[in-house]
Parts: sequence; C-alpha cells; structure tokens
Amino acid sequence: MKTIHFAVVGGDMRQAKLAELLAADGHSVSTFAVRAAAGERLRPMETAAEAVKDAQCVVMPLPISAKEMILNTPLGEGIHMIEQIFAVMRPGQLICAGRVSGPVYELAAKHGLRISDYYAREELVVANAVATAEGAIQLAMSETAVTLWNAKCLVLGFGRIGKLLAHRLRGLGAHVTVTARNHGDLAWIRAYGYEARHTEELAGYLGGYDVIFNTIPARVLPEERLMEVGKDCLCVDLSSKPGGMDFIAAGQLGLRAIWALSLPGEVAPVTSGIIIRDTIYHILEEERSLCG
Amino acid sequence: MKTIHFAVVGGDMRQAKLAELLAADGHSVSTFAVRAAAGERLRPMETAAEAVKDAQCVVMPLPISAKEMILNTPLGEGIHMIEQIFAVMRPGQLICAGRVSGPVYELAAKHGLRISDYYAREELVVANAVATAEGAIQLAMSETAVTLWNAKCLVLGFGRIGKLLAHRLRGLGAHVTVTARNHGDLAWIRAYGYEARHTEELAGYLGGYDVIFNTIPARVLPEERLMEVGKDCLCVDLSSKPGGMDFIAAGQLGLRAIWALSLPGEVAPVTSGIIIRDTIYHILEEERSLCG
Amino acid sequence: MKTIHFAVVGGDMRQAKLAELLAADGHSVSTFAVRAAAGERLRPMETAAEAVKDAQCVVMPLPISAKEMILNTPLGEGIHMIEQIFAVMRPGQLICAGRVSGPVYELAAKHGLRISDYYAREELVVANAVATAEGAIQLAMSETAVTLWNAKCLVLGFGRIGKLLAHRLRGLGAHVTVTARNHGDLAWIRAYGYEARHTEELAGYLGGYDVIFNTIPARVLPEERLMEVGKDCLCVDLSSKPGGMDFIAAGQLGLRAIWALSLPGEVAPVTSGIIIRDTIYHILEEERSLCG
Amino acid sequence: MKTIHFAVVGGDMRQAKLAELLAADGHSVSTFAVRAAAGERLRPMETAAEAVKDAQCVVMPLPISAKEMILNTPLGEGIHMIEQIFAVMRPGQLICAGRVSGPVYELAAKHGLRISDYYAREELVVANAVATAEGAIQLAMSETAVTLWNAKCLVLGFGRIGKLLAHRLRGLGAHVTVTARNHGDLAWIRAYGYEARHTEELAGYLGGYDVIFNTIPARVLPEERLMEVGKDCLCVDLSSKPGGMDFIAAGQLGLRAIWALSLPGEVAPVTSGIIIRDTIYHILEEERSLCG
Repeated sequence: MKTIHFAVVGGDMRQAKLAELLAADGHSVSTFAVRAAAGERLRPMETAAEAVKDAQCVVMPLPISAKEMILNTPLGEGIHMIEQIFAVMRPGQLICAGRVSGPVYELAAKHGLRISDYYAREELVVANAVATAEGAIQLAMSETAVTLWNAKCLVLGFGRIGKLLAHRLRGLGAHVTVTARNHGDLAWIRAYGYEARHTEELAGYLGGYDVIFNTIPARVLPEERLMEVGKDCLCVDLSSKPGGMDFIAAGQLGLRAIWALSLPGEVAPVTSGIIIRDTIYHILEEERSLCG
Repeated sequence: MKTIHFAVVGGDMRQAKLAELLAADGHSVSTFAVRAAAGERLRPMETAAEAVKDAQCVVMPLPISAKEMILNTPLGEGIHMIEQIFAVMRPGQLICAGRVSGPVYELAAKHGLRISDYYAREELVVANAVATAEGAIQLAMSETAVTLWNAKCLVLGFGRIGKLLAHRLRGLGAHVTVTARNHGDLAWIRAYGYEARHTEELAGYLGGYDVIFNTIPARVLPEERLMEVGKDCLCVDLSSKPGGMDFIAAGQLGLRAIWALSLPGEVAPVTSGIIIRDTIYHILEEERSLCG
Repeated sequence: MKTIHFAVVGGDMRQAKLAELLAADGHSVSTFAVRAAAGERLRPMETAAEAVKDAQCVVMPLPISAKEMILNTPLGEGIHMIEQIFAVMRPGQLICAGRVSGPVYELAAKHGLRISDYYAREELVVANAVATAEGAIQLAMSETAVTLWNAKCLVLGFGRIGKLLAHRLRGLGAHVTVTARNHGDLAWIRAYGYEARHTEELAGYLGGYDVIFNTIPARVLPEERLMEVGKDCLCVDLSSKPGGMDFIAAGQLGLRAIWALSLPGEVAPVTSGIIIRDTIYHILEEERSLCG
Repeated sequence: MKTIHFAVVGGDMRQAKLAELLAADGHSVSTFAVRAAAGERLRPMETAAEAVKDAQCVVMPLPISAKEMILNTPLGEGIHMIEQIFAVMRPGQLICAGRVSGPVYELAAKHGLRISDYYAREELVVANAVATAEGAIQLAMSETAVTLWNAKCLVLGFGRIGKLLAHRLRGLGAHVTVTARNHGDLAWIRAYGYEARHTEELAGYLGGYDVIFNTIPARVLPEERLMEVGKDCLCVDLSSKPGGMDFIAAGQLGLRAIWALSLPGEVAPVTSGIIIRDTIYHILEEERSLCG
C-alpha cells in the first residue's frame, strides 16, 4: 500500500510496537499518550492536537476505554478524555479503535468522525485467540509442578480460544477433553481427536484433571462443581466478565484459580502489534475500494 | 436408550452396516431392498409393507433418491418408487432419510408422515467430512508416485472438508497451502499453521503443486487456471455438482483429474454406518424430549 | 556438484525415475535393462558395455539381485548375470547398488571394482521407512471399511518404521498403541504421546484393535496370539523375512492378513528415486573428500 | 510390586515429592535432609542413621552431589558429607542415586554398598528430556514478546532434547529448523517435517530467527556466530557444561542469552518425582529378577 500518515494515541505495549511497525513500513507516525521510542519517521508529540493534525488514520487502544469515557493508557501516560481527542480531529480522518462501545460511537458521530472497530474483525479476534491460547499454556506451565505432557486437561467450550488451545495442548502431549453444548460441536471435537463431553454433564466428572481451562462466559463452574475439582488442579479462567467460575468459592476451597484476562497484550505485545497493523491495513484497503 | 423397532429400507453398504449395528444394540430390525445379513434380531423382508409394519422408525438411504422419486438402491436391490414405501406406512412412524428434497417432503406430508433429514444435522455432516478427507488422502496416495510426506499440497476452500483435510495432510508431513475468500478464514488458516492464500488470487500460482484438492462447489479451476498446473500434479475435486474444475479442459491438457464424489460410503461404510446410527439416536432423543 | 557421467543398469520404476532425475540435474546418463524414456542427456543403450563405457558411477538396483547372482529387473528387461555387467567395467568406476550381499562384494573385488551399498546408509533407510509407513497407511485405508480416524491401531515395534508410522497414524486421528521391549523405548513411546506396551506382554491384549501393524522381524504373532485378534481386524506385516505373523494360521482363522514387502518402490517410486539420487550424491561427495 | 521400606536422603522438590509418592503407593518411607511432609507412612527423621536403619532401598539426590563429596540439599537442609550417610548403612542395602561420579562409586565400594545410578537409565533420561523441552518452551514464552506461533525457531542438535523440543515447537505452530551433523540425522529431521541444516553450516544463516535453542554441549555459537544473531532473538542454551554459546560475547553484543540448566526439577518437580519413582521401581524389579 502507499504510505500515509498515522497517529497512534493511547494504548499499551501493543500500540507502542504498532507505531514502530508502521514507521518501519515507511509510514509517517505521530504518537501521543503511548510509550513509543522516537525514530526517523516516528515522532512522539506533546499534545493530542499535534499528533492527529496531519493523520489520515488515527489508531486508538484496545479497548479504547477501560473506564467510562477515559482513553485507555495502562502504562501510565496520563488521563485523557476520549472527547478531548475527538475534539481536535476533523471529519475525514478515520479512527481505528478496539472494543468501541455505543457511547463512543455516538461521540464520534457528534464530532462527524468515522470510527472502525478493529476488534470487530474476525482476523484480529482469531489472531488474538492464538495469543490467548499460548498465554494460557504459559500460565499453566508456570503455575503447576507437572508437565503438560501426560497431564489431563479439560477445556470448557469449543469457540475460538477453545479450538486453538486444545490444538496446542495436544501438540504438547496432554490428554485433552473438550466440552460443548450441541451435537455438531461435539462432532467437531471428536473429528480433531479430542475426548468430547457435554458442557452440561460435568457433574461427577471434574475430579481427575491436572488443569481446567474455562473459555465460556457463563457460570459453568459454580461452587458445587468446584467442590469436585482435585486439590492439585489448576483452574484457569479465560472468559471475559462475568467469568465462568466462582472465585470466592474457589478461594474458600483452597483451589488455585486464576482469572487470566488480556493475555495477548501481556504475553505477546509484539505479535499483537503485528496483528493490529495487518488488520488496520485490511480496513484501509476496504475503505479505499469502497471509496475508489 | 430403550430398544425399539427399526426398518431399514434401501441404501448401500452403510445402511446394511447400520442395520447390523442397530440389531447389535438390542433393537429389532426389519430390512427391505438393502443387503443386510439376517441375524437374531435382524430380519430381511420380502416386501416393504412387511418391513415397515411394526417399525417406530424407518431409516432410508443417503441420498434417499439418486434419481427422481426412485428409492436409492445402488447395490442392485431392485427399483422401488419412494411413494410405494410411503404408501404402506402409517402416521406416527418417523422416517429418517438423507438429503431429502422438497418433492419428497411434500410426498411425505401427503401421506401424513414425519420425515427427518439426518444429512441436515451438523454431527453427521462433520463426521462425513472426516471420512471424505480420509478418502481423498487414500486417493492421493494411490494415484501419485510420490509420498504425501514432503509433497506440496493445495487445498481450495476452508469449509468442513478443507479444515479436516488440511489437518490430516500436515499430519502426514505434506506442505499445505489453503485458500479462502475472507480475512477471517485466512486468519484461521494461519492460526492452524498452514500457508494461506486468497482463493481469488490463484493466477500464476498453481505451478508448483504435487496435489490440488478442491472443496469449493464453484468453477474455481477453469481452463485458464488448469493450464498453469504442472503435468505431474494430481487434481482431486471433492466438491458436489457442478464441480470446481473444468474436466473437459483437464482431459485435453493431459492432466490427471479425479472427481471424487460419495467417498464416505465407498472408503468407510462401517464408520459411516456408525455415524448414521449415532445421528439417528440423537434425532430420536430429541423427538422424545419434544414429545415427552 | 559438477556434472559427471552415470550409467543406470537394471532396476524398477525407482531406477527409471532416478535416471531421469540425474539427467534433469545436468548429468549425462546411459541406461541398460531399465525402462527409462530417452531424453537429451539420457540415452538407453543396447548393451551393458555401451552403457557403462564412459560412466564414472554405475548405479544398480535395490536390491541389486533378487535371486542368486542375477541382476534385478522386475519390470521384465531381460535376464542378465551381475558378472556380465562387472566384466565390462574397469577399475576406478564406482558402483552404487542396494542390499549388496557378500558374494556380490567378492565378485566386485575379483574384478577390481569398488562398490558402495546405498541401502546401508541411514539417510536412505530413513527416507525408505517414510515411504513404507505411508504405504502401510494407504493399505490400511483401502483394505478396511473404517476410517483410520478413531480407529484403534497397534504398532508392534518402535524402530524406524514403527516411529514414523505411529506419528502418521496419530496425525490421522487414530488411537495409537506402540510396543517395545525395553524401558528406554517405552519411555520414548510415551514421550511422543502414544500408549505404550511391552512387546512380550501381548497375551490377552489383542482383542480390541481395528488394525495391527507389525514391524518386528521375529515371530511376535504366532497362532495363539492371532486367535485373540478380532475378526474384523486387519493385520499388516511390514517386517522382512521371515515375517512376524503366522500367515497359515491367520488364513485358517479367517483373518485378513497382508504381508506388505517393498512398499516404497510400489507406492512412491518417484520419491524413492529422489531419495536414491540424494544418497548417491552424498556417496560421491564423501568419495571426493576422501580422494581429494 | 510388594511394599518395602525406603529411605529418601537429601535432594530437592523432586525427592520430596518422590517420598510422598512412595508412601502413597503403600511403602514405608523415612526421610532425612529433604523437606517432605510427614504422613501416615512417611516419617522425617532427625539423623541419617535413623532414616536408613530399616530401609531396603536408600534414594539419594540427582545429582547425588553438587560439589565435592557433599550431599546435594539445594533447599537448605544442612551440610552432610556423603560418607556420613554411607557410614551408617550396611551391606545389602541398595542405594539409588543420580549422576554418580567415580569417587562416589569407590566410596560405596569401600563401605561394601551397592549403588545404582538412576540417571544412567534411558527411561529417566528421556522423561527428563520431556520436562527440559517443556521448560525451554515456558522460558521462550515468558522471555519473548512474540508468540511461538509463527515464530522462526532454530534447534541446534537432534539428540533427545532436540527431538522432543522440535516436536513441541511445531505443535505450537512455530516454524522449526533443526541442525545435525550427519546425513542420517538430517534425514530423520526431514522425515518428521522440520527444515534441516548441517550444524557446521550455520555461518551466514543465523539472522532471521526469533528463538535459538542450543542442545549441543560444544561451542557451536562462538562470538563470530553470535554477531549474526538478530537483536530481538532470544538464545536459550540447554546444554550441560561447558555450554554451547559464548555468554560473555553475547552480553557484550546485547543479546538476550539464557543458560537454562536443571529445568526438570524447577518447572516440573512433581512429574520428575513420578519419573524417578518409576525408574526406581524398574531398578528394583531387575535387581529382584537377577537375585531371584
């Protein structure tokens, strides 16, 4: 693609890496409220206004906001209202941001700005799931005193993360059981060679595992199920809020339970930055062909 | 489940095996127009009327009809109109059949019969895709003078068969490239570790393969693409009618091209019979819980 | 490597393909008693003397002889004594041949000829084992009515073929058990994730398999063991003479038992030709560095 | 096996876990200088003499000694000379210890004691290599900002650890190149589907990797090779002393280089304890059949 001018505003290590990658591809990049190292084509700016001034595309964090309408800057780059950023932009500039909520869409509309949610795109979500699956494996390795080889692992749910996690666990030599709710998914689980089990038939069945990974965003592991889990079993919850297990009960039962959110940014910010870059390129290509 | 009375009417080796499996599970089974060996609980009948008389569930072939409204009996068990079978049944008997067309549904309705298409169920279609993928590999092994190990294989399409075929080819040590049309599927292809390529960007790219498998039911390999294919390359088309490659052009170009339809029944009738049995059990469970 | 003059004398499809491959690499190739198509640099000759006349390296079959001292020409290219070939060669020409017996070595010595056994080289034997493993899978697929997916497979022996076969069977979704005789090999079997079993503890354990592959060249499946094998189980013996199973007993018991010898040349002559070529190149490199 | 009396003397978490596992199998276990929790059949003793008094088998650490002739007690259970332990034993008691040196063998002989080195047994070394390979992966995951999925990984050496590590890296979706020194091993590397490269032809080839794992106990990565390694590449050395890379040069070049020794005990003490237990059982079985 031809080189353009990007602004990268807010975010964590992924956005910092993204800024470097865009510059390395020959684009001009201005940054604000994100820790990117200055370079030939990469200029950190003092204000949002300066950063967005010449940008055709303004990249914002994933999620764009962790709390109300405040820009997500987890690495401590100050507190900035999203509206402050939008206010210094002009119609025609494209915003690419992640997990954009209704109020943020409305705010953008009020300012006459187009916003595209890169987290709504399947290619980003899949690649993110790869990083999540790998992060979950790293966690299981570091938090247990057993090898995953020969370990009995249960994966609750056969969505994106469940599919990719099961694949990798087997690649490491674990014995893998996966649960799902319908006959079609159970057939897929068997087709890939895992043990299959109905998600709703867990009672009496949780005793023998070394690691249980949950990927289902629903209370699949309430107290009565956790009571069956072995005392040496590690429980890793990968589901988004409200989470799939009763952490209070887990604590009382003395179980090791970890709620692992946001793994991609933590365990693989560089790969995540590459993924976001590629997705933004896809968005820009499609914008162009729509406009063209 | 509690034992019931089945009739198995028409079909190939899969239905023959199915009849034996049902009997082995303790059910009473009557058959007509299918080559099943008689056994303690398995009685071949002279007429359709006798076969269906006491049956709670009547199993018919996949597809129920290969031609117009004639019962599918590829192993030469005579010519029987589907209407002849329906005419001797009574309301309340459940028909389980595969690939039921609109006219067959109408015919069943006319006779007051319920019909459930087992081929419309994901668990059967997935398991069928496993057998198709394996059959395609058997074909590629027997029709080439190279090993699949170290062979360059191209899989067109990442639907059910494409997914399962790519997985198995890699398990055998092939170099696997898979094509898809959208960024999401391309991300999945990469997440599983295959080379990814846009289905619409094949031009100039088909020269180096040892085997090309097509799974897309659209003309993705017209003459101009086939002209690029190497003379030692085997082309296997797994897509249903109208097929993905121009077989006439392939013949003129001297390419080895095989249109492999109905692999599951041919290469793995026993596994296919088991799959149909399991699916029919699921249908019956759901019928019961609906009625219950 | 620099181009030289080869003669290819005798052999099957592998040697025919080898001749073409050598010519395609820029070497001059003369052939005798092997069905290779003439080409720019590939000339079939009427007599052995003409074929070997200018050759620096004379390639002979694998095995060089199937019977006594007669050149191996399984595709019907006449009967020729090995001594006839040696007699028209001169000292300094290198012979590369497969499975060279003591008497053949002596005969070469008598004629002042050096002979190098390419089948004695690990790289050829390993690559041959890959082709054998793949051929065994093709056989199992075509001779059973079940898919290898979900099939219970037993592999007797964890040598080269056992290792590569188990790896591929699992890649196809089979449940794989492998046997070995010592704790070290059993640990390797488990390290790769297969079920492990002592080769000497098979009694009472052979009943549940869909396919049994033997790779051990010793009578591990005598009549009393075969009596335990299920009637639908396929037995594939991949071991060289005297073979691992009692085929007479297998026949009397009504078991499907196949003694599959020489699979590489049958199922993958092109890949096998490539392997032989690469091995001969290694031999020539080492000769040169020794001489140089 | 029938239950006997064990003493576990010295060691780390693996020996502590081993003591618990032996007790859980019904054996009586006395311990000294190792942190095992007391239990019904597991009694920590105040002196070595008490611990070994009734033991038929005395288990000592891996390695038995980290320094001169001092018992290995890395978790801080005091300083004890090996001779002190041997002095309170009597002929007929079997010692099982790991990495027994010549002087320790001589010392045992002087006291009339038999000693069996469990680390000399293939089944333990293989299982240890599994844990090492997995530990190396955990390390690579935690020390890089990329996923192993899609990462370019180089594994130097195709011995036990190299084999198992390459297998797991590929299971995680990495691009894997493995090096070896002879054509046979290179053929094995290709047979398993990895890219193969001569260990001695690394010059000019080290630039593009994300992670380099060394398993060869020889200086394969001297300063001139390290100069080619990319600045973001992680180097993990898994070889025993003297190690395969020049760590001083690596430091000066600003490379991230880690010398990861003793991974099994650190990352998977429970699995390691199980492995040691199984190996000791094998030793006892063989002793019995020798004596019996």
